[in-house]
Amino acid sequence: MKPISKTPIVILNFKTYLESTGKNALKLAKACEKVAKETEVNIAVAPQHMDIYQLSQKIDIPILSQHIDPITAGGHTGSVLLECAHEAGASGTLINHSEKRMNLANIDQIVKRSAEKEMISVVCTNNIETSSAVASLGPDFVAVEPPELIGSGIPVSQAEPEVVEGTVAMVQKINPSVKVLCGAGISTGDDMKAALDLGSEGVLLASGIILAKDPEKALLDLVSKI
Amino acid sequence: MKPISKTPIVILNFKTYLESTGKNALKLAKACEKVAKETEVNIAVAPQHMDIYQLSQKIDIPILSQHIDPITAGGHTGSVLLECAHEAGASGTLINHSEKRMNLANIDQIVKRSAEKEMISVVCTNNIETSSAVASLGPDFVAVEPPELIGSGIPVSQAEPEVVEGTVAMVQKINPSVKVLCGAGISTGDDMKAALDLGSEGVLLASGIILAKDPEKALLDLVSKI
Amino acid sequence: MKPISKTPIVILNFKTYLESTGKNALKLAKACEKVAKETEVNIAVAPQHMDIYQLSQKIDIPILSQHIDPITAGGHTGSVLLECAHEAGASGTLINHSEKRMNLANIDQIVKRSAEKEMISVVCTNNIETSSAVASLGPDFVAVEPPELIGSGIPVSQAEPEVVEGTVAMVQKINPSVKVLCGAGISTGDDMKAALDLGSEGVLLASGIILAKDPEKALLDLVSKI
Amino acid sequence: MKPISKTPIVILNFKTYLESTGKNALKLAKACEKVAKETEVNIAVAPQHMDIYQLSQKIDIPILSQHIDPITAGGHTGSVLLECAHEAGASGTLINHSEKRMNLANIDQIVKRSAEKEMISVVCTNNIETSSAVASLGPDFVAVEPPELIGSGIPVSQAEPEVVEGTVAMVQKINPSVKVLCGAGISTGDDMKAALDLGSEGVLLASGIILAKDPEKALLDLVSKI
Repeated sequence: MKPISKTPIVILNFKTYLESTGKNALKLAKACEKVAKETEVNIAVAPQHMDIYQLSQKIDIPILSQHIDPITAGGHTGSVLLECAHEAGASGTLINHSEKRMNLANIDQIVKRSAEKEMISVVCTNNIETSSAVASLGPDFVAVEPPELIGSGIPVSQAEPEVVEGTVAMVQKINPSVKVLCGAGISTGDDMKAALDLGSEGVLLASGIILAKDPEKALLDLVSKI
Repeated sequence: MKPISKTPIVILNFKTYLESTGKNALKLAKACEKVAKETEVNIAVAPQHMDIYQLSQKIDIPILSQHIDPITAGGHTGSVLLECAHEAGASGTLINHSEKRMNLANIDQIVKRSAEKEMISVVCTNNIETSSAVASLGPDFVAVEPPELIGSGIPVSQAEPEVVEGTVAMVQKINPSVKVLCGAGISTGDDMKAALDLGSEGVLLASGIILAKDPEKALLDLVSKI
Repeated sequence: MKPISKTPIVILNFKTYLESTGKNALKLAKACEKVAKETEVNIAVAPQHMDIYQLSQKIDIPILSQHIDPITAGGHTGSVLLECAHEAGASGTLINHSEKRMNLANIDQIVKRSAEKEMISVVCTNNIETSSAVASLGPDFVAVEPPELIGSGIPVSQAEPEVVEGTVAMVQKINPSVKVLCGAGISTGDDMKAALDLGSEGVLLASGIILAKDPEKALLDLVSKI
Repeated sequence: MKPISKTPIVILNFKTYLESTGKNALKLAKACEKVAKETEVNIAVAPQHMDIYQLSQKIDIPILSQHIDPITAGGHTGSVLLECAHEAGASGTLINHSEKRMNLANIDQIVKRSAEKEMISVVCTNNIETSSAVASLGPDFVAVEPPELIGSGIPVSQAEPEVVEGTVAMVQKINPSVKVLCGAGISTGDDMKAALDLGSEGVLLASGIILAKDPEKALLDLVSKI
């Protein structure tokens, strides 16, 4: 039940890199599982849709979908149904990632339906205002990622600490049950420590780990200063 | 290689019905496999993205993706990468289904990239003109489905036979290597026979089988008059 | 400067009805102007993009755009640029109408850029949660419209008064500078009075007036009980 | 009726540059009109939606819409209705510009509805295959623009002459009533001459003229070698 609610948490978004597709996805997820076990830090993975089932059969850390479409069961060829993600083994989902923005009514719908299925909802946002907005929808997590820093290698916790602090303050004010993550440019243990020091309860990251020469080592470094 | 090129062919689109999700998808796919073996008719299934891997491990008939996104590997959270579908076990893909329309440049891109991976491309269209247009892109199949008949129970082969015949004639003229399927409202052996008599080389169908009381029996009837 | 901030306000969305296109748009806007002058109620119109310039030359009540695209000046063929709307005579814009939903980051962008140009922002929402969310973005107005009632003829103020009251309460709590309108199913003076009694500061409506046999008379009735 | 069918033709796409918005749009359109009168070359302009009405009142050369939405009259807030474009003064429309791609079924719909209203249809494409595809839909013009050259200043007629020649040959074969334009990177008289020598009947261009220091002079140069 809601297995990823323990914080601090690291969510690794596999995106659609070849380095995190198919067999590579499995290998990467196993590295995440190994580091999670060794360090007792909560690490969740968000693989591509078609890799969820395989990973759910072979690893034992939380798996998130990268996206759920705002549909209910029926005639929606090519779309991602929440019930299918759930049955395939996803225990939660990213929502409104900057690479897959959703409209506001649909974010609200998926947050509510995730809760009904006891799936974790992680809504991505781009600044303090939109993070505050999402707090009113009551997801489990808001993950604030200034878009200009995504994939930049420049950590948000260093480049725009006021965005993380401001988001934490506003979300706390509007809906204290919502936890704040931060993303964009995070890759090292120092970045993660800074993120937690600013009041966030974890990080959402991708290329910093996925494209690292040795992802397992990079993950170990990431969680080393928690 | 290109395992589904043998015709006549039946392609069963699982859409996003609960009756064809997860465990139900596996059960339905096994019924398809059984009928395909017994009758020696070529039957392919197009399950939801998250069910492809499981089905590819457990059944031995061709599996198509319902959709591929027009992206290449990289930062595209929530999208469907052709390479991921291929590795998960899809030997082809539906493209431009009426419930997941794509723009023309993207249809062209996915047809070409499917061919490079030796994956079968099945482009859905809505009338004679758009079918003729798609013939110029050179997919393996064009599946013409008048949208007003999808899910109607009224077979296109009966309601609008001129659409099937006209499509066959125009596609033959523009690009004779492209095969024509027809869809929309097909569910019985008579419908399928009529579709083949009109010059098509198979059918694309969904609810007529998926929502049938006994899908295996419905499939047996469907292929009984070939 | 912000000419439509006086409340109560009636905003008439012309949508894309033939009854409110071109010459008909001008006729309808003149009826709105006449009623506004006679009754001293603030009435604004939201015509189609291509009718804004003409109306701005010939009538003297506030004109809103129905939508602004989230682009800045440059190569965006076919999109609606805020600067173009402003120069054509729009003194504000609807944002995120249920028939033209926008993603959250883009709603935030257009609200901010409207404020910079001193254009009124009216963000449409579908329930209490999304209205609360939008309050954090600080638009001039939130217009809550339960989608199931749009065009129904059943007024939200009667069918779901708790949605209007709840929205007013939550928006007031989160951002008291944001005013609440309500829409969906409003057409009579009683509907409008009920909307104001529930705490809203006006209404957003369309078919109830546009498709009325005598729109001017319908408008007069609408504002008769303020 | 169909006033822009005379070729060679120059279509100037105003896109959403500030240099071609509002008053600047009018000034630029007047320069186009002046050059068209002086040189007797057919020049059409495609301004932003909100500038169409004003231009149609003040200049006497053909005006195209940059886009029409695939809707019919009704509840479609924020969309562009063909009937509204027509009444505002557009005698035709661009369709499927690379910055406003449409799905295939919708391209087909807008081509057909434009013909019913005797409006000129100019469908943009990106290569030989998609141009051939569009020929089957029977628009008045296909405008082929390799996307990598748009706004590059490198003329397609020089960088990829085989794309223009191949498009002309294939379109001629599939539907000889469709005329071919070419775009992308065109800005000088030499570029235009090369485009016509390759078999096209005109050009679609934008930044090369709009952002020129003296657009009127640039236009005069453009048509100087026809």
